[in-house]
Amino acid sequence: MALYRKLRINGDRLNHTIQSTCTSWGLLANSTGMRRLALSQEDKEVRDWLVEQCKAVGCDVKVDQMGNIFATRPGQSKDKRPIAMGSHLDTQPAGGRYDGILGVTAALEVLRTLHENDIQTHCPISLIDWTNEEGARFPGAMMCSGVWSTKSATGLEACYAIKDADGISMKKALEHIGYLGDTPCDCRENGLECYFELHIEQGPKLEAAGKRVGVVTGVQAMKWYAIRVSGVEGHSGTTPMNTRSDALVTASLMIAAVRDIAMSTRLGFATVGVITNDTQSQATIPSGVEFIIDVRCSTDKIVEDLYLAIFISLDKIVQQENNSTRYRVVRTWGLPESTFHDDCIGVVRSAAVDEVGLTEIMDMTSNAGHDASVRAISLHHISRAPIFTSREHVSCSRYSLHFLKGTVHVANPLKWASKVVKTSMIFVPSEGGISHNPSEYTSPEDCALGAQVLLQAVIRYDEVVKSGEIS
Amino acid sequence: MALYRKLRINGDRLNHTIQSTCTSWGLLANSTGMRRLALSQEDKEVRDWLVEQCKAVGCDVKVDQMGNIFATRPGQSKDKRPIAMGSHLDTQPAGGRYDGILGVTAALEVLRTLHENDIQTHCPISLIDWTNEEGARFPGAMMCSGVWSTKSATGLEACYAIKDADGISMKKALEHIGYLGDTPCDCRENGLECYFELHIEQGPKLEAAGKRVGVVTGVQAMKWYAIRVSGVEGHSGTTPMNTRSDALVTASLMIAAVRDIAMSTRLGFATVGVITNDTQSQATIPSGVEFIIDVRCSTDKIVEDLYLAIFISLDKIVQQENNSTRYRVVRTWGLPESTFHDDCIGVVRSAAVDEVGLTEIMDMTSNAGHDASVRAISLHHISRAPIFTSREHVSCSRYSLHFLKGTVHVANPLKWASKVVKTSMIFVPSEGGISHNPSEYTSPEDCALGAQVLLQAVIRYDEVVKSGEIS
Repeated sequence: MALYRKLRINGDRLNHTIQSTCTSWGLLANSTGMRRLALSQEDKEVRDWLVEQCKAVGCDVKVDQMGNIFATRPGQSKDKRPIAMGSHLDTQPAGGRYDGILGVTAALEVLRTLHENDIQTHCPISLIDWTNEEGARFPGAMMCSGVWSTKSATGLEACYAIKDADGISMKKALEHIGYLGDTPCDCRENGLECYFELHIEQGPKLEAAGKRVGVVTGVQAMKWYAIRVSGVEGHSGTTPMNTRSDALVTASLMIAAVRDIAMSTRLGFATVGVITNDTQSQATIPSGVEFIIDVRCSTDKIVEDLYLAIFISLDKIVQQENNSTRYRVVRTWGLPESTFHDDCIGVVRSAAVDEVGLTEIMDMTSNAGHDASVRAISLHHISRAPIFTSREHVSCSRYSLHFLKGTVHVANPLKWASKVVKTSMIFVPSEGGISHNPSEYTSPEDCALGAQVLLQAVIRYDEVVKSGEIS
Repeated sequence: MALYRKLRINGDRLNHTIQSTCTSWGLLANSTGMRRLALSQEDKEVRDWLVEQCKAVGCDVKVDQMGNIFATRPGQSKDKRPIAMGSHLDTQPAGGRYDGILGVTAALEVLRTLHENDIQTHCPISLIDWTNEEGARFPGAMMCSGVWSTKSATGLEACYAIKDADGISMKKALEHIGYLGDTPCDCRENGLECYFELHIEQGPKLEAAGKRVGVVTGVQAMKWYAIRVSGVEGHSGTTPMNTRSDALVTASLMIAAVRDIAMSTRLGFATVGVITNDTQSQATIPSGVEFIIDVRCSTDKIVEDLYLAIFISLDKIVQQENNSTRYRVVRTWGLPESTFHDDCIGVVRSAAVDEVGLTEIMDMTSNAGHDASVRAISLHHISRAPIFTSREHVSCSRYSLHFLKGTVHVANPLKWASKVVKTSMIFVPSEGGISHNPSEYTSPEDCALGAQVLLQAVIRYDEVVKSGEIS
């Protein structure tokens, strides 16, 4: 055990891996940022590279029905499930080099370190690359870790049918790049002992507090609603201003109100990131506009409170517009607040403090959603797992969301309850708190430090499983 | 001449032609409305039909470099240019069965009537189908009548390069449907004696006044500006609400302001019909949003006044947003106010009153732009013709406008000045003033009456040319 504590990941190799793979696959034009959309050619190529690298350090590689990659280095025990590390390799349309990418490349660095030191672990150790975490190409963030966690055939089929802006379905895209696997995308059939995810904070807290590592104890709640505003088409040069039913004007008033209410109530974050207009013609009054509201707060209750304030405001806007337009809430997706497991949180904390010898650490919750949060939900929140229900058809939209959150609507919540997997996360600072932006930055030293904590957390968890302290 | 005055168009045939061609080519799904985008397969098929019908009544058919179709029935004089009628067969993405379509089918009905009565006119008589009047697929309304009027090789090449939302260029689309002709798209080389256009009013004035025919004396001024708002991308769940640079929030405030200012100043119409968002990702704060403002007023001066009020408001919005976002005016297109020619206005009026015997007529200006207005401009407005200048590149937009109005910017306006063609228009009522909408409606009786006035206007103009009253 003492030997293992001397193990050091290779920070130069890790940072070279991050920079060289970003430069090779998905570099954003005229920028150092990234555009590596899920299941794109760039995503295929980085996946092929990852699989090859994992095989080179003695891993068996499985691809599941949603394209999630599980690369597993065998352990001595024949009956233990893997201790897993992972994140995602896809990015936002104009994203950075660390969000998701750090978690996967650091996991590879851990595997490389174990391999070159010929370490024999008790449990198998897995690296996971989750498909379409960003939800930027196929709407629905954390999509494929969600399917794996939810254990629902309906969810699998619903996600297969989701289409990108060009009308290509998720299933077609998986087939096209050769990542439609046959391993069941189901945490029961392809389970894990526990799951650790290293990630950049994507916020300003660590930097502001002068800390270098965050021990993540949970993730804030989040919920999306798609709003569809309907008006009446008309000629822009002849329809009197006072008799119009302009869906875009109403939607604009609403989008501004969403921001204003989040500002004035200080309950959390509210953002509109997607807007579509059915007609898109310069000389036509828009008749159908759709936009998606993303709300994130520290608890489920506060998310509901903020949405309540928003919907009261949207109703008021429609009234002030003399009911010339209508709106409806088309569908939603959401992730309840999640609390990570004490076993995992404890291991991360002791890895940072005892094994790596850090003092600049802090406990924190994540404001962003991560694959890790989907994993952790069912353990602590009976009835709160994200579930898939009936798909409503939206005829005119480029975007179709097929998720509905079941928190308040599930007839029999208990049937969704079961243990998924014990989870925690490790955060490292984001310069200026900036993320989902080409200028996203985490220093090479912080990347290496995070990977070192990840390595030690995995080793420590393996030791306590072997010792029988954790069953 | 007395014989000619007894000529009657066949209203049943005209209305059958309108309805059957709309049903065959471009019927909007689940609607009686139309979606016949310029140079689409539906547009190709209705063009093929039109060419065949015109040949069947003795016309020579020419297609010019922008796909404008000129079908000409020969006259007795060898040195006169054609008296022309026409409009457009393309529609808005969700348009009606009369806007443009009535003008072309009524012109065909006039040709059929002349043919079956074996009428020998002095001047040749032409039917014209102008390409891409709506500008709905390829941005830029009245595009190809504009090129014909502007006599500019630069304009031709600029329009060839304009792309639709799928990246298909105008030139490729013309080639694809077989309508890239070799007749010069130039009013000097392929000129007309005069031009009459029958059109639905697309507004409520005739209906409100209880009139059946409008004698159109001019068209209101119109101008488009594309506004590009720039912010900074950020993660929707981590970027503090009070430090954001959200381009969509700013754009939304601006779009609402555009409407509010048109309402409060009562200067004219202001509409935003197109909006695009660069990132379109649910979890990313939008960093680049573009929208197009369409302003129409009775005079050029009032258009400028309304825009001035709008831009003052946009500046104020940016200040109120603490200058966290910026905006710039990317480019514009416009059409100055136009006054039709007295010779043509007089002929339409006497056709309606003296020849058709109508009393329910009124003089009016058009609030919508028409191919006819592009034709009429240069005659009365030296230096005001729409011109094409340098193309500014917009990297992230799905829409690129390549027009810039030269009213105030042309270094040497006189070089654009020359006589294009004498023009007037005939309006028939639009039920409820509704247009650019599937429920657009004009009664069969009003369609027939408009076509009858068109026939008599053409015959009367031909007579006065023959008599030497008009040279």
